[in-house]
Amino acid sequence: MATLSQWINRLLLTLCVGYLTITYPLVGHAENDGSGRSVILFIGDGFDDQHVTMGRNYLAGQAGMLSLDTLPERSAVQVETVSAGGQPLYVADSANTATTIASGVITNIGRVGTAPDDTDTLSIAERASAQGLRTGLVSTASVTDATPAAFVAHVEKRGCENPTIILGGERYGQTYSGCPQDATDNGGPGSIAEQIATSNIDVILGGGRQHFETKQSGSTKTVIDLATARGFSIVTSRKALFTTETNKPVLGLFADEHLPVKLRGTDNRTAEPPETSLLHSLHPYLGSVEQPAVMDCEPNPNFAQAPDLATLTEFAINRLSNPAGFFLMVESASIDKQSHKRNPCGSIGEIAQLEEALNVALQYAARHPDTLVIVTADHAQAAQIVPEPSLYNSITVPVYSPGKIARINTPEGGVMRVNYATNNFVSEEHTGAHVPLFANAPAGVELPPFMRQRDLHQLMVDYLNL
Amino acid sequence: MATLSQWINRLLLTLCVGYLTITYPLVGHAENDGSGRSVILFIGDGFDDQHVTMGRNYLAGQAGMLSLDTLPERSAVQVETVSAGGQPLYVADSANTATTIASGVITNIGRVGTAPDDTDTLSIAERASAQGLRTGLVSTASVTDATPAAFVAHVEKRGCENPTIILGGERYGQTYSGCPQDATDNGGPGSIAEQIATSNIDVILGGGRQHFETKQSGSTKTVIDLATARGFSIVTSRKALFTTETNKPVLGLFADEHLPVKLRGTDNRTAEPPETSLLHSLHPYLGSVEQPAVMDCEPNPNFAQAPDLATLTEFAINRLSNPAGFFLMVESASIDKQSHKRNPCGSIGEIAQLEEALNVALQYAARHPDTLVIVTADHAQAAQIVPEPSLYNSITVPVYSPGKIARINTPEGGVMRVNYATNNFVSEEHTGAHVPLFANAPAGVELPPFMRQRDLHQLMVDYLNL
Repeated sequence: MATLSQWINRLLLTLCVGYLTITYPLVGHAENDGSGRSVILFIGDGFDDQHVTMGRNYLAGQAGMLSLDTLPERSAVQVETVSAGGQPLYVADSANTATTIASGVITNIGRVGTAPDDTDTLSIAERASAQGLRTGLVSTASVTDATPAAFVAHVEKRGCENPTIILGGERYGQTYSGCPQDATDNGGPGSIAEQIATSNIDVILGGGRQHFETKQSGSTKTVIDLATARGFSIVTSRKALFTTETNKPVLGLFADEHLPVKLRGTDNRTAEPPETSLLHSLHPYLGSVEQPAVMDCEPNPNFAQAPDLATLTEFAINRLSNPAGFFLMVESASIDKQSHKRNPCGSIGEIAQLEEALNVALQYAARHPDTLVIVTADHAQAAQIVPEPSLYNSITVPVYSPGKIARINTPEGGVMRVNYATNNFVSEEHTGAHVPLFANAPAGVELPPFMRQRDLHQLMVDYLNL
Repeated sequence: MATLSQWINRLLLTLCVGYLTITYPLVGHAENDGSGRSVILFIGDGFDDQHVTMGRNYLAGQAGMLSLDTLPERSAVQVETVSAGGQPLYVADSANTATTIASGVITNIGRVGTAPDDTDTLSIAERASAQGLRTGLVSTASVTDATPAAFVAHVEKRGCENPTIILGGERYGQTYSGCPQDATDNGGPGSIAEQIATSNIDVILGGGRQHFETKQSGSTKTVIDLATARGFSIVTSRKALFTTETNKPVLGLFADEHLPVKLRGTDNRTAEPPETSLLHSLHPYLGSVEQPAVMDCEPNPNFAQAPDLATLTEFAINRLSNPAGFFLMVESASIDKQSHKRNPCGSIGEIAQLEEALNVALQYAARHPDTLVIVTADHAQAAQIVPEPSLYNSITVPVYSPGKIARINTPEGGVMRVNYATNNFVSEEHTGAHVPLFANAPAGVELPPFMRQRDLHQLMVDYLNL
């Protein structure tokens, strides 16, 4: 039983913590420079600490720094996921994590803007829009892909991207049940594309044109028609982007699916399995192993088919900047997608794109100090930097990764070896490490050195006074 | 001019902060006891962000926090390594990284306290000792292992741990050239054990007794005799530790090699390869796969044979605490060693040990505010948390890691799947991600959010005014 002094202590503690919490909230109130507060949130999909280091080693050199390394705040963000039965799962996907960052709600893998009980979550973009702030979503993926979708749409499954697939059918050669309860046929809000087309988001830029060219169920009209009726300017080329009407919301669709990536491996090579000699098949300690040949990262010739991420980010910021403030999410999506494909040059190019877009945002924040700029990842990914040569190179038995290896010449004259070995399948698995977070430090913001993704959501909501 | 309500606010704030500081000194500023500044540096060997998250998920739960998560400062530390030819290498070992942390010098893999040109580096422990600060090294590895060795010894190769092996011979079934130029026979400073025995370190605790029981070259005397002649109290049991003379330096050797670890997998199981059906050998899309059975983490029955890390840390701090200040390095070594062996329960137990020892240090720092407490890793490691079940579980082909898998029941009712797949050999490879750093925030210390290991060295040197 607690003593009287323990009770008094508890009472004083409660009063003090309550007082301090009210007087000094996590995010304080800075002096306003006349404009409203804004948040620019960068999500590097799969951009974990291995990928950040890969990007630094290649783009800035082992002793160099990325732009994000110069940001004054750094934190680690724990990813939280639950199974349908409510048990903790230790590895996430982009759908459930984007839902948590967008809404603060922990949910199931594959869910977009819905809680485990299928109720709709409320995203920070939706809250900001309702309070008169402008909002934007930019991605190098299809704008219907999980990360941007979770800020604007609400469906049971991330695959329900257009009015056809939402009703189910075949997908990747498998039977797909779709999200019939979300379909307009059944009184639902429709597919992700339809929900984007009827949303209040001011700027939506990325890929995914095919999903908007799909006809609505029982209609001759496409989702593009729906978006146009709603008032969106539809743009599909870099040129059109800069001639679009300035008083209308913009839906930019620059590729059928995801935007082309900036870099690729020599001759489009990705990671390959080390090759062992015939003798090695007799005993693990016999024979020899040959590692895949070294490759360079070279420009992807298709890259110029769409605007780059920095251009899209600059366009979005220019459109969104206004006295009331704005919320903008910018995703470099293919860090993850290229890691699934075991293509480290692909991922590195998308890290370069994130850096270039970040520089645009930081230049804006320098002129508009009430702008919180955050860079984080949604989940960790498969790639690992491994020793070149092996730490066991002097041992006279063949040593090699059981997975697939890429050896990349770096501009500073090193060779960076990257291992992909989470899966035998055509696509690597995500991994479960917490993810990094980098931020500028506008007045009144102090980031805790450790948080959960739902804390990140709350921090942005508090900063925008939503 | 402040309004009345502002004055009241300030008064309430002052009272609250005063109350909380007195009641909860851990989070506030205790009174300075007049002692000089001290540094307690924790190195979790291989303790990268995957391992930190593994530890958090198991020990605190997915939504929980480790003690190190509560520390107010967080940074990422880039690891730098060069080849013998001076080219950047993107993956390190514990010898070259400990040398960089200890001395600020970037060097080659395997080097202990020596630069690439084989000149001796000067460690922070040696500098501190020369300036009248007490110094200590504590490790769960042999005290001659690379990490503690780099703070006190100077040899070409980390394997030169005792007077026999330094002359070369056979090691792990391979011809070993040793470090003849460092041997006393050739006018060198001797093996790592001999250099420890003749050092000015005040407290050295860990394993490695066998290296000290080795006779010196051309002598009937062992390295223990050398250490005794130098004035060390030699202790080899927990009991002896607490009865040793208080006015003598202490060399504690509690195991022949490394100290026993705290946890292990059920029935000593480690990660195992998934098993595929016969049909699967015909085509990758045919047949089925069986993942290894789930295991628990259970106490290692041998753990009590040596003192635990928290006990050693507490002993060291008590011995070192003095008005001039001290430098103490504490290594939880087997996070890495168990990861090499694909034993996640082993690593998790050593993370628990690091946490317990950190709590001892933080309690000391609460009473002695001029104490900088840092937790970092030397390099990243192989373990990856992967999805349970696979993200591709609904695909009707067998999907599985090409490496080895452990599936661990967590106390909160989840199953954490850990993948080891950097190597086909008996030991996994290190990986190349930058490593995390956590620190308390004593007055006068502001940590940059990004640094290199040589910057970490400089930060500690500056803090101690060396």
